Amino acid sequence: MNYPKGIKNDNIINKVPTRYDNRGMGLENDINLTNQYYINIKKAYIYKKPTPIQVTKIEYKNNSIIIKEGFFKEPSTTDYNGLYNGKYIDFEAKETNNKTSFSLNNIHKHQVEHIRNIINNNGIGFIIVRFNKLNKSFLLFGKDLIDFIDNNGRKSIPLTYFVDKGFLIQDNYLPRLDYLKIIDNILGG
Amino acid sequence: MNYPKGIKNDNIINKVPTRYDNRGMGLENDINLTNQYYINIKKAYIYKKPTPIQVTKIEYKNNSIIIKEGFFKEPSTTDYNGLYNGKYIDFEAKETNNKTSFSLNNIHKHQVEHIRNIINNNGIGFIIVRFNKLNKSFLLFGKDLIDFIDNNGRKSIPLTYFVDKGFLIQDNYLPRLDYLKIIDNILGG
Repeated sequence: MNYPKGIKNDNIINKVPTRYDNRGMGLENDINLTNQYYINIKKAYIYKKPTPIQVTKIEYKNNSIIIKEGFFKEPSTTDYNGLYNGKYIDFEAKETNNKTSFSLNNIHKHQVEHIRNIINNNGIGFIIVRFNKLNKSFLLFGKDLIDFIDNNGRKSIPLTYFVDKGFLIQDNYLPRLDYLKIIDNILGG
Repeated sequence: MNYPKGIKNDNIINKVPTRYDNRGMGLENDINLTNQYYINIKKAYIYKKPTPIQVTKIEYKNNSIIIKEGFFKEPSTTDYNGLYNGKYIDFEAKETNNKTSFSLNNIHKHQVEHIRNIINNNGIGFIIVRFNKLNKSFLLFGKDLIDFIDNNGRKSIPLTYFVDKGFLIQDNYLPRLDYLKIIDNILGG
């Protein structure tokens, strides 16, 4: 299905059931499993925010409210946030089928502002980008994302920039995508 | 309008326009103004999460998606989160017209779990409760909320508990509700 840019389909039901026993069924699922693992081992508490929706029409039926009209809003923040040993953690996760670059159309203007605010307040903000065709996921810190946006006229970030400035996230069985390992290395944890 | 428990009306349009020049038009507005003030003076970055909605029917029209049926979900986290000098901040804000106690029906089971997770991961979690009839707003730290829930069979928290264990938030013109001052005092900032 074609959702508007940046809209995830996880709050639409009747989709194909999630298969937890299978590999490679999407970055979002891998992150959700990883976050659940972090909760289970009491390492961190990182969770997905609701998708922002503008409700324009409601109806009352049997003492409950039914939304009869609404629209997906352009996200003003990122998909995930939470805390790791008291520190604020925040990131956006995106997949691309492009083999050589990641289009900045995937990141909205408000999301860039959100990441700037996180950096300015000493939080840990980043993006995780999976190059599906290469089967590689990179963590790129907010500072490096902002540096690129502020200093390049380009509309996409080349893969080489992820290789140079980003961090390849190991793809394991458990946890699926151990992105906090990279944070540990940076924080000296 | 009667929304389900815990559902705020801020994502429903056609409501009375917000009047920024007026006082006492609701806790939520006071908090939003306060958070905007914190952003303006670069003190902190704290923001409201979207209301969780379950979308059950969509339609395509002119290349865009219209939600034709959906339901408000019971919130599994809190209304606000963000960061203050790198530290994770998280809270729920509630008003009550009761003069002597705050009903725990206002806080959902999942929200209590959420607050437990924040405490366990060394975050700063709390609730802000305004007693409308008394024109007083209290900050009660998550730990004290959980202590009450775990050690009392009561279905409501008496005002005296807020007076004893909580912190009265000063009501000013700017910022409207300076709750971070209480965090500063606690952190020794």
